[in-house]
Order: sequence, then structure tokens, then C-alpha cells
Amino acid sequence: MMSDRAVVLLSGGLDSATTLAIALSQGLECHTLAVDYGQRHRSELTSAEQVSQALGASDHKVLRIDLRAIGGSALTDDIDVPEDQPSGIPVTYVPARNTIMLGLALGYAEVLRAGSIFVGVNAVDYSGYPDCRPEFIAAFETLANLATKAGVEGSKLKVRAPLVEMTKSEIIQRGTELGVDYAMTVSCYQADDQGRACGRCDSCRFRRQGFADAGLPDPTRYRGQSKGTE
Amino acid sequence: MMSDRAVVLLSGGLDSATTLAIALSQGLECHTLAVDYGQRHRSELTSAEQVSQALGASDHKVLRIDLRAIGGSALTDDIDVPEDQPSGIPVTYVPARNTIMLGLALGYAEVLRAGSIFVGVNAVDYSGYPDCRPEFIAAFETLANLATKAGVEGSKLKVRAPLVEMTKSEIIQRGTELGVDYAMTVSCYQADDQGRACGRCDSCRFRRQGFADAGLPDPTRYRGQSKGTE
Repeated sequence: MMSDRAVVLLSGGLDSATTLAIALSQGLECHTLAVDYGQRHRSELTSAEQVSQALGASDHKVLRIDLRAIGGSALTDDIDVPEDQPSGIPVTYVPARNTIMLGLALGYAEVLRAGSIFVGVNAVDYSGYPDCRPEFIAAFETLANLATKAGVEGSKLKVRAPLVEMTKSEIIQRGTELGVDYAMTVSCYQADDQGRACGRCDSCRFRRQGFADAGLPDPTRYRGQSKGTE
Repeated sequence: MMSDRAVVLLSGGLDSATTLAIALSQGLECHTLAVDYGQRHRSELTSAEQVSQALGASDHKVLRIDLRAIGGSALTDDIDVPEDQPSGIPVTYVPARNTIMLGLALGYAEVLRAGSIFVGVNAVDYSGYPDCRPEFIAAFETLANLATKAGVEGSKLKVRAPLVEMTKSEIIQRGTELGVDYAMTVSCYQADDQGRACGRCDSCRFRRQGFADAGLPDPTRYRGQSKGTE
């Protein structure tokens, strides 16, 4: 196992871009992995590739899996994305998404003999997703080391979620220090083909508030009119 | 959550067919899930669908994911399947396969509000795969309940691996009692388009020995000549 090699899950959003910048700042050789799970916001995938190149990852891979076949989320099905905060777990929750993505990252890490997996989950602004909590990440690391050759052979794979306890504004401050160009990232649940945001969904509101709280200009490209005033 | 509803992972092989028969014998409403991961032995997928129908599952779903994109196994890559027993973990090991498959089953179980997931892993004849051990299954169950709405809401999803401590001959005996037609199943790592087995790979040898130990006729269709004497 190569402890200086990492697999970084990249969604095209703000959090995973920052996670990649953090992994690179630790001197790791980063291999980014995006998962095309039939998301309605396809511009995420273009964004992920751009972010990977811009920040200097070693390579970028896209894995295709059609989660629409099992349904159950406004992010993959024809369910309207809500524009005001629902209580509890939102309809934008994709069933078992982080379990599946981390599973794929684990397979790729094994092939590369990478010593760590980085994922941009975040429990503070986590919007009610159960698979964004620190205890979920810890349980996945335990599983990963039981599941793989590396675990059997005694070396330990690490699962890192460096943003897990950070607020959105802390994430934005850290990424900005590390040179992340957030104009390149897409957070909106219903971005258009050019990656322009709606400005109204949960994810847009967390992001906009994050820039405001960080005291930094919001570079997000919004639909309809110029910046963030739709 | 509906405790009498289950998702059953079905590979087209002997073990998962027996697992489905066991789940059905417990009075569960079974929804079978096969994963098309780019395996070289495509006849598995046809076999899975036939087994699902023949045993009386409620429905059958196939999820496509191209694990060849990450490589690393003789089952998905152009690496020769070995015909004599290697030591340690064999090259036919697909990186993180059971983690990925269980992750997909978990997503499907959430959508269906199923109370359990059944998987046909087997630690006795496990051929050196780390993700077939009982401790792996237990760790996945823990993860599943941290990952999902069900876990957050307090109901507990169960992950069942009823074959985990059984020998191949015990599996065959149990399945035969439950009416499984093993002629319908494909275990061979390099079966042909008609699902006929090579008779020489690891998986074929375990299977053939299982029928012999169980004192039951081997209904496997072998290539080249009639039964099992290639």
C-alpha cells in the first residue's frame, strides 16, 4: 500500500473541491473519482473534471451507475426539488449514496494500492443526510479494512472526511486559502447545462450563506440575472 | 419499514440461488437484485433472472455499473483465470465487490422500505476473499444502520448471510430440499454464452466437490462433453 497515494471522491461541488485541495496540500498524489449516478444536474460531472485538472490531481476517472433504476430521490427521479427547507431527511436524499460512492472509491483504492480515501461529507450543514455523520465515516473505515486485501495483509486504509466538523464558511475560507476557484464548482441541485445555479434550493442557500458568513464574494453563476439576486 | 420484505442479491450462482430459496422459505416477499458489473461471464445475468422467476421472487432488477473502468480482477479484465489453486487471495477477487453490491442492495432496500438484505456469501469455501467473512457482514450491518433513514428513525435493517458458515455440500443439500434447480445456476468463472462451465476453475472445482460430498448428482452443464468429465 502506498501511503502517499489517495483516492478523492469529487462531485463537482464546493465541498469535494475543497477536500481535494486539502488532500493535495498534504503532499498526497491524488486520483479523483466522480460517479455518474444518473443525477439530473449533469453539469456536476463537467465541473468535477475541471476541478480535478485545475487543482492538479494526477488523473480523473468517471464511473457510471444508473441509480435511477432503483429510484427514490428528487435528485435522480422526476420529483420536484423543494425550494424551502423541509423538516427531517429531505427528498433530495439519494438512497445509500455515500455507501455506494465510498464502496466504489474503496475498489479503486485497492486497485491503486492507495492508502487513503478522501470524501467531502460535512455534518454541520449536512441537511439531514444520515450518511454525512462522523460515525458513518468511522464505520465505513472499519468495514473497508475488513473488506479488502489491505486489511487482511495488515496495512490500514484510512477514510478521511476533513470537512466533517467544519461550517460552510470555514470550508470556503480554507479552500480560498488553498487556491480553489469556486466559480468552477456547482452546488445547485437543479443547475442548468452551463452549471448555472437556481439560487433557491437547499444547497444554493447553504452555499450563498457560506460566502456571506466568510465575508468573501460569491462567485456562483446564477440563472436569469447577474450574481445571486434572482 | 416492512419486516416481511427483503432484497436478495442474486448472482446467478449456486450460493445466491440457495440464499433466495432460504429467504422465501421464511415467508419473506423477496425482491431480487443482480449487478451487471462488466463480468466476463455474462451468462450469470441470464441465470439470475431465470432463478428469480423459477423460485418465485416478487420481481427482479438489474443494476449496471462498469467496474472494468477501475480494473484489477481476472473476472472483469483480460487476465487469465487460473485453473489451479493459488495461495492467498486469488486474482479472481473483484476489488470491493461485496461492499459495492451490498451498498446497492442497501439503496434498493431503502426505496422499498425492506427490513432485510440477503447475500449468499460463504466463509468456509470462501476461496480467500476477505469480503466473505462473518465479521465483514456484521460490519456492513452496522454501517447500513448508520447510513440510512431507517437507522435514524430507529428501525433496524438486518443483513443476512445464511450460508456464511455452511460448507458447499451443506448448501447444496439445503437448496435441494427447498427445490432449487441447480442446472439453472452458473458458478464457473469462465462460463460460455450458454452458461456451460469449464470444469477446471476454482469455482467449478468447489461446486463439483460439493455435489460429490452431498451425495447428489451434479446437474452442471460442462463444455466439450457430457457431465463433468472434461
